[in-house]
Amino acid sequence: MRRDDRGVTPQSEDFSAWYNELVTKAQLVERGPAKGTMVIRPYGYRLWELLQAELDRRIKDTGHENAYFPLLIPESYLEREAQHVEGFSPELAVVTHAGGKELDEPLIVRPTSETIVGEMMSRWISSHRDLPLLLNQWSNVVRWELRPRMFLRTTEFLWQEGHTAHADEAGAMAETMLALDLYTEVARDVAALPVVPGEKTPGERFAGAERTFTIEGMMRDGKALQAGTSHYMGTNFADAFQIQYTSQAGRLERCHTTSWGMTTRMIGAIVMTHGDDKGLVLPPRLAPYQVVIVTIGRGEEVRAAARELADRLRAAGVRAHVDEREHLSPGYRFHDWELRGAPVRLELGPRDLESGTAVMALRLGEEGKRPIPLESADKILPGVLDGFQAYLLRRATEFREARTRAADTWQEFTGAVAAGWAAATHCGSAACEDDIKAETAATPRCVPLDGPPGSGACVRCGQPAAYGRRVLFGRAY
Amino acid sequence: MRRDDRGVTPQSEDFSAWYNELVTKAQLVERGPAKGTMVIRPYGYRLWELLQAELDRRIKDTGHENAYFPLLIPESYLEREAQHVEGFSPELAVVTHAGGKELDEPLIVRPTSETIVGEMMSRWISSHRDLPLLLNQWSNVVRWELRPRMFLRTTEFLWQEGHTAHADEAGAMAETMLALDLYTEVARDVAALPVVPGEKTPGERFAGAERTFTIEGMMRDGKALQAGTSHYMGTNFADAFQIQYTSQAGRLERCHTTSWGMTTRMIGAIVMTHGDDKGLVLPPRLAPYQVVIVTIGRGEEVRAAARELADRLRAAGVRAHVDEREHLSPGYRFHDWELRGAPVRLELGPRDLESGTAVMALRLGEEGKRPIPLESADKILPGVLDGFQAYLLRRATEFREARTRAADTWQEFTGAVAAGWAAATHCGSAACEDDIKAETAATPRCVPLDGPPGSGACVRCGQPAAYGRRVLFGRAY
Repeated sequence: MRRDDRGVTPQSEDFSAWYNELVTKAQLVERGPAKGTMVIRPYGYRLWELLQAELDRRIKDTGHENAYFPLLIPESYLEREAQHVEGFSPELAVVTHAGGKELDEPLIVRPTSETIVGEMMSRWISSHRDLPLLLNQWSNVVRWELRPRMFLRTTEFLWQEGHTAHADEAGAMAETMLALDLYTEVARDVAALPVVPGEKTPGERFAGAERTFTIEGMMRDGKALQAGTSHYMGTNFADAFQIQYTSQAGRLERCHTTSWGMTTRMIGAIVMTHGDDKGLVLPPRLAPYQVVIVTIGRGEEVRAAARELADRLRAAGVRAHVDEREHLSPGYRFHDWELRGAPVRLELGPRDLESGTAVMALRLGEEGKRPIPLESADKILPGVLDGFQAYLLRRATEFREARTRAADTWQEFTGAVAAGWAAATHCGSAACEDDIKAETAATPRCVPLDGPPGSGACVRCGQPAAYGRRVLFGRAY
Repeated sequence: MRRDDRGVTPQSEDFSAWYNELVTKAQLVERGPAKGTMVIRPYGYRLWELLQAELDRRIKDTGHENAYFPLLIPESYLEREAQHVEGFSPELAVVTHAGGKELDEPLIVRPTSETIVGEMMSRWISSHRDLPLLLNQWSNVVRWELRPRMFLRTTEFLWQEGHTAHADEAGAMAETMLALDLYTEVARDVAALPVVPGEKTPGERFAGAERTFTIEGMMRDGKALQAGTSHYMGTNFADAFQIQYTSQAGRLERCHTTSWGMTTRMIGAIVMTHGDDKGLVLPPRLAPYQVVIVTIGRGEEVRAAARELADRLRAAGVRAHVDEREHLSPGYRFHDWELRGAPVRLELGPRDLESGTAVMALRLGEEGKRPIPLESADKILPGVLDGFQAYLLRRATEFREARTRAADTWQEFTGAVAAGWAAATHCGSAACEDDIKAETAATPRCVPLDGPPGSGACVRCGQPAAYGRRVLFGRAY
């Protein structure tokens, strides 16, 4: 990579170009040959693995078990739930030939697995003793995208999809909210994304769901990104696939089901929430390398000291990396790790070794460079990383709060959604939502779970407000 | 599940029926709706996750990085390596329509990823400094199967595929053997499979490989199962995809590449190596539940003691499970955990509590039941599990050795491959291999890496022997 190749367009000039250039230049991802597909490079995939581990542990700790369902689903399965097939049919990829022959029935490359899971649940559940059935799957799914963007909208993406069956609505709704809580916690505590959990308005529901909940994050251009969703399906899929059980009283009852998913889109959310004109800024809990030690000069002594320091940091639970690329200048390498978002850089040269210190530079903040003693670096850095993690969350929270405005008039509304989000009362009609979207490009992101009560007139049409509280509106990815 | 549903056909009566019934009844897997696809149920998937973790750690420890490449590959990519496309074309699943339209170029659902990885390597590698490039991917692949069997031959399976690029043959061959060593170690030390590592004869090579290495396991019916393969590709894929680098001397050189894979087939190998007429026998290192505590009676006191014991076992690093299904008889539950292969069962009832003991029963071996003190169970059981793990490996090794015979005559050969494996000298001709297969159904499994030297005449045709050592022949899955 030549030095002049590494710069990215400033956010203020063209946020979209900034993003597209950055995810490639930071070696997170590259376009695949088939339209809208992505190659997730090791640096991006490691980030995904670290996120997976955090989410998977929480999914297991709450009693769910992982399983694996087939990629290829008979077309007829999707047709059994009317809304579901209507929502997904424009996005499907279809296998028509296999093993050298045309198939009798085309197979769909799964866009999501409710139908095949529903079919299996109907075989596995017979008694109330089989409930709740709490399953999760880590997999790839395919949804044809006309306007793909790496991580945000791709023809194929990676995700987990939880699928659960319950005896009644109360059980299924508790599960729906539990999944939403897990997502909120992972986004906030792991990815440092101060997401707003809330319910989607009816027009934004998942195809086949009774209720859809979401976590919404604000990107640094003020737009919203849906970072995870959790759906209460009612008995829609139980009806379509005959998921039934015999109750304690001996009656045949239908199950209530849920599904919930979080995807590689989260990587895009992290890039757009924390990144700046120098490049990525990775939250320490997900950074492939939390601390990068850049050797200065060509001495074997420096390399040995850097490796020894990295080993001590690793023993203290820090993901440390030594950059020994001596054919590149230190300045080049400093820029490189800023581009790739390493939270902490340690510079180590012969003079530092003499004084028994390394020069520490944080990726963000006003602290500037400062020397730290080599001897106690493994004691100091875990705290520095925790502080950096907390700083990112605080900074993103302040940004979101500054760009979210209560809008009581249409003028306030248009001003708010031009720069960020508007919290406004809304009538709840789909036609009015469409009207707002046509005028401002903003859509209802969610009815926040813990938003303050709100009533009165719709900010757009003046009809009585629905939901009993303000709705968050914003332009969205 | 009714009691009479749980029995399986004895191995001696019909090994194939035994296998098919067992993998379903033990809740490892179930047939998917599309031909040859499988639903991996939580008990089977947990086994896979535990195997994954062991293999993934070793892959990372040896310097490889995980990445993710697209599922859908343009048809033209596969055509660039002639042997590769010839080998795979009968097995391909083809996406012809997507997003509601017919595609200009059909997309192949990946049967393996050499081609797409090759394309990306050609973009990522330019200098000798970029080598070796050591990548691995965990993914699903699709190969159309006419005669599917759960785990062994399925239309879709899960696997890891390593893909690496090197400056020269020596580097690539060292990598090929490193991967084979990892597989041998994981099979032996984790899955208790005493596999034989060796090289495939030319007729059994991977499509597009210069050399193919394999680990071969012996199942309890004497048949062989290929449990992992590692391929040296020479410059075949580098030629097809122009994977090139500039050497230190400034010359443009072609890379030498490798690929290697281990799949969900390993689950089938474990079932068929250790299982018996009562059901699965799982090696402790992969058993989802290493110790199952079965409560006897309906007392709250017993349940509380069982849970407390399970917690102590978990704290000692043991995967413990409490079976509190009090609506089922203890005898039913004992049989159930024998069917599902839990290495150790602890029976805990009111009388046991009084004496401060639990009754321990191992899934295999001549020890019978014996009481162990509750107080020290967490000290005793890790050792018991290690002993059980070692016992499984020893037993399988003895079985393999007893069923492997040096065959110097055709009569000895046919006798050996009727019950197990023959170690015989062979001329190396493909026609002679075909002839042996037509006569006996046996194929050359591998030329063992550490087999004793062997020379003389071919056991079948009398021509001079090739390879300098005996070849293992057997019927195979």
